[in-house]
Amino acid sequence: MPLTAASGVYTIAVTPFEANGAIDFASIDRMMEFYLRCGVTGMTILGVMGEAPKLDAAESMAVIRRVLAGAVGLPIIVGVSAPGFAAMRALARESMEAGAAGVMIAPPNSLRTDDSIMGYYRQAIAAIGADVPFVIQDYPLNFQVVMTPKVIREIVRENPSCVMLKHEDWPGLEKISTLRGFEQDGSMRHISILCGNGGLFLDFETERGADGAMTGYAFPDMLADVVRLGASGQRDAAHDLFDAHLPLLRYEQQPGIGLAVRKYVMARRGIIASDVQRKPGGTLGAKAKAEVEYLLTRLARIDARAALQQAA
Amino acid sequence: MPLTAASGVYTIAVTPFEANGAIDFASIDRMMEFYLRCGVTGMTILGVMGEAPKLDAAESMAVIRRVLAGAVGLPIIVGVSAPGFAAMRALARESMEAGAAGVMIAPPNSLRTDDSIMGYYRQAIAAIGADVPFVIQDYPLNFQVVMTPKVIREIVRENPSCVMLKHEDWPGLEKISTLRGFEQDGSMRHISILCGNGGLFLDFETERGADGAMTGYAFPDMLADVVRLGASGQRDAAHDLFDAHLPLLRYEQQPGIGLAVRKYVMARRGIIASDVQRKPGGTLGAKAKAEVEYLLTRLARIDARAALQQAA
Amino acid sequence: MPLTAASGVYTIAVTPFEANGAIDFASIDRMMEFYLRCGVTGMTILGVMGEAPKLDAAESMAVIRRVLAGAVGLPIIVGVSAPGFAAMRALARESMEAGAAGVMIAPPNSLRTDDSIMGYYRQAIAAIGADVPFVIQDYPLNFQVVMTPKVIREIVRENPSCVMLKHEDWPGLEKISTLRGFEQDGSMRHISILCGNGGLFLDFETERGADGAMTGYAFPDMLADVVRLGASGQRDAAHDLFDAHLPLLRYEQQPGIGLAVRKYVMARRGIIASDVQRKPGGTLGAKAKAEVEYLLTRLARIDARAALQQAA
Amino acid sequence: MPLTAASGVYTIAVTPFEANGAIDFASIDRMMEFYLRCGVTGMTILGVMGEAPKLDAAESMAVIRRVLAGAVGLPIIVGVSAPGFAAMRALARESMEAGAAGVMIAPPNSLRTDDSIMGYYRQAIAAIGADVPFVIQDYPLNFQVVMTPKVIREIVRENPSCVMLKHEDWPGLEKISTLRGFEQDGSMRHISILCGNGGLFLDFETERGADGAMTGYAFPDMLADVVRLGASGQRDAAHDLFDAHLPLLRYEQQPGIGLAVRKYVMARRGIIASDVQRKPGGTLGAKAKAEVEYLLTRLARIDARAALQQAA
Repeated sequence: MPLTAASGVYTIAVTPFEANGAIDFASIDRMMEFYLRCGVTGMTILGVMGEAPKLDAAESMAVIRRVLAGAVGLPIIVGVSAPGFAAMRALARESMEAGAAGVMIAPPNSLRTDDSIMGYYRQAIAAIGADVPFVIQDYPLNFQVVMTPKVIREIVRENPSCVMLKHEDWPGLEKISTLRGFEQDGSMRHISILCGNGGLFLDFETERGADGAMTGYAFPDMLADVVRLGASGQRDAAHDLFDAHLPLLRYEQQPGIGLAVRKYVMARRGIIASDVQRKPGGTLGAKAKAEVEYLLTRLARIDARAALQQAA
Repeated sequence: MPLTAASGVYTIAVTPFEANGAIDFASIDRMMEFYLRCGVTGMTILGVMGEAPKLDAAESMAVIRRVLAGAVGLPIIVGVSAPGFAAMRALARESMEAGAAGVMIAPPNSLRTDDSIMGYYRQAIAAIGADVPFVIQDYPLNFQVVMTPKVIREIVRENPSCVMLKHEDWPGLEKISTLRGFEQDGSMRHISILCGNGGLFLDFETERGADGAMTGYAFPDMLADVVRLGASGQRDAAHDLFDAHLPLLRYEQQPGIGLAVRKYVMARRGIIASDVQRKPGGTLGAKAKAEVEYLLTRLARIDARAALQQAA
Repeated sequence: MPLTAASGVYTIAVTPFEANGAIDFASIDRMMEFYLRCGVTGMTILGVMGEAPKLDAAESMAVIRRVLAGAVGLPIIVGVSAPGFAAMRALARESMEAGAAGVMIAPPNSLRTDDSIMGYYRQAIAAIGADVPFVIQDYPLNFQVVMTPKVIREIVRENPSCVMLKHEDWPGLEKISTLRGFEQDGSMRHISILCGNGGLFLDFETERGADGAMTGYAFPDMLADVVRLGASGQRDAAHDLFDAHLPLLRYEQQPGIGLAVRKYVMARRGIIASDVQRKPGGTLGAKAKAEVEYLLTRLARIDARAALQQAA
Repeated sequence: MPLTAASGVYTIAVTPFEANGAIDFASIDRMMEFYLRCGVTGMTILGVMGEAPKLDAAESMAVIRRVLAGAVGLPIIVGVSAPGFAAMRALARESMEAGAAGVMIAPPNSLRTDDSIMGYYRQAIAAIGADVPFVIQDYPLNFQVVMTPKVIREIVRENPSCVMLKHEDWPGLEKISTLRGFEQDGSMRHISILCGNGGLFLDFETERGADGAMTGYAFPDMLADVVRLGASGQRDAAHDLFDAHLPLLRYEQQPGIGLAVRKYVMARRGIIASDVQRKPGGTLGAKAKAEVEYLLTRLARIDARAALQQAA
């Protein structure tokens, strides 16, 4: 069903591969079950962390269909950023026909002015069709494109099919406040805001007005709990839980090797069969793996302590 | 037939579109006849100036097949740069099976160290197969990746299937001399060097040791004549001819609108039916068109004068 | 006298050095006489091509004073771009007190949004004082900052002390037309526009409404003549003269070695004693020098032929 | 005394200003006392976070002298990165004469090849003199220059006056291991490694072989304790302490507003009189200040709890 609003946690799904580089569809199924168990409210596939550019067109559609098959009604957003509008349109239309809830579009890194950014989204929406709900991906650290709140407001105004901002500007807390301020002063209609950046500021992002997270941290249940605790006014509890995960979350958020950490943890937890990435991809050396293990051990100890305290 | 060496002019073919954005296959046929008449020795398709990223996968193969059908033996290089190796491999293998002579690979703009550039070509060749002749595209102005002569030498050494450098570093004359010096001191095997940059320095590039041009200037016959005159030792005549075209050639080489100028001239000469570009594309205003017309008039006058002088 | 408007040719002065790297003040004097003889209407010093960042603060002021001493009334613009506003203010105030006509300010390469560019000029003018006439330097190829015509209009509106645009966007002809259009529709007050980019498009820039050139091509007399011929309606003559110089001008405009070519030609013409640059600087190898010599010979031949034709 | 090796914590000093933008020398004195109390082993001034580019040349030297006056023997590193070598040399020589222990040099953001990075350091050291101990600042996120371990090894080999790496690559843990591996296999002499990035990975950096931190987190005593605990084999205690600070440390490490957070906390702790920055500078809104206060409150609670546990 086409997306109109979102909250909670839209996990960024990884794409599992077998040792020979083939897509591991069995792991996709297991991963879907895991995400559903974690209480995620939606999912985003074929994003940067889904190794989307490493799939060819047929593989992309195969992944989309398998994920949709296991989604049991969970809304699925498909990343359709592409070097050109023909490929973007093809992927967007096929995805929606297959049952996706919407698409996500990132700006190409050549855009350098406010007008060029707004013009890009105008042309992209003309290409994919105004009936396809879309998410703006605002990720300057990766794309080198900076969108001011005014530019985002203008994209929202020009394109009624814009339903969400994936927010991963950095720093970004004031941006959330500014956008929510635009809604309050009536200059912008409401859109959903889900935050990325690996969740590194999720504890405060929801307090600023974000609806939740869109990121792929290997413990999506923690993200979901933090959003839930925050929404129910349990501020300290939300921060306690978040802070317990912060050492690992920060470790996973390292550029270049973040996906390797995430896949390693997911493989170790039995969610996917292998942490293999297609080339080019980061890998973890023995020392890095030991560091992750140490962080997992510390996390388990803190969790145990918290359980004891709750029981007491 | 797989390419082993090249000289003369490999024209960068445009991709002609109809007013509605559909690929104009009739214009491709006419364009092929034109290029053959001009004395080009090869052709490169689906490069930056061929609007490659604006085609979807099926369209790319359709263009490749139509061009190959009209090439009557002329070697065709296919640009296969892609965001990932799966798509690159698919396009490269299909192109070679269809009869292409080789492929061209540009580095992604995220590469920032010598090792990462060499590693990229290593992985790319592993992906497409070591049996596919390939051309290194060295175009820092566009790709933000700078390859030193030593890095190019290393890529050539590591990859026996490297047959050519498309040289469009800027400034680049010393780079040609350095690479040819490597060949003379025995530290690098010989590869072909064809130069881009719209031909802006072709007059001296061949004198430095380049084998010719790989660029799409709307008068490929001039480029071919300049290479021929230079090769036969007629230096002044080569420069006279080149200089006569330089005002227009420089105008066509403007980033952002260069392709619009090129397609306008080609449409006006009846080579393609329309100068339409797919979005996003530059367009020429009335003043720019008048400027191109003025440059064409001046070019015609100079050509006429030269013909008179030769007759005298 | 503070600058209010400008036309003709503001040459970008080089900074001559002795073999040991010391500033060559005698050559500055000779250079000033040369520029005056060439018919330039103003001068810009301590720009990128004046090796400004290679001078310390005291040296910068010494160069400014020496140039002003030889300027006999010619307006002198001083480049005051600096990593911070304290240094910018110091250089701007000292320059104006010493007799400069105005200053030129380039945006730092970190600016990525329209608002940040306008904000930067607002802060810069607050720092140097609203009484100092200033020139916007719009040079995206070098600074990676893209200013749309609307942003320039806003800077002009916000800052009454803005008197000129140094235009070296690329492509840039439409930008001149757009800005002049703003003046005609009353949305922007008139400012002077002088063009850079080594003069590569000067032939058309003046036709689009630019007031002339601000660039350092080693034959400023040609630039001045082209502007003069254009202004008096002798279009073909302007283009004939320009085209005769285009092969050398293009050669001099190569990034990285352009200044080496310029200083080589100026030293060879006896204008400065030596073509030495402070480090880091480009140098010309033997082949490049021979190429410049060849271009100078061809230029002399064409000049001689033109003189004969005029005499006939 | 010229620096030969370093360990522990070299704090990156802020530059305190009065409300009117003047340098606040009294706060410098108080800040020096604070840093000494915290157990820092050295200090770096006029770095990015010291607002160095916002000072003019005379102000820079005044800050250096005041800091040296209060340093009572603590080694002081001065950031001397400058747009040109003349200014770099002047600042380096004056700093060393005034009593600095060494200088820190960052690569300019235009460098794009291994050779150009090595060449830059060669020219810089030739400019400042081979007798001045220097620190390589390796900070790709900010400078866009990526130095491989091999390039760092080469800079160390070529320049005997290189005594330290300020390591803030990201991700960077493997880089530390690789460099220490070079020392073990005898291919590189030993240098000190102090880590930046706001301390975000200090817990593991020391375990990988780094000698400590060079960063300006507002609680330098924590950084010093973490290094000390790690060095004495108390791994869990080091991580416990580090993790307690991580929520605030992460908040302070946000690009753009990090310095505003740091100065706010320092002003609130009475270390400097005001959190004023010179323009351009980030500022904290009311919500951000409240967030910092909340983080400080949580930190105090955790500290109290830890004290209780230790007492128990």
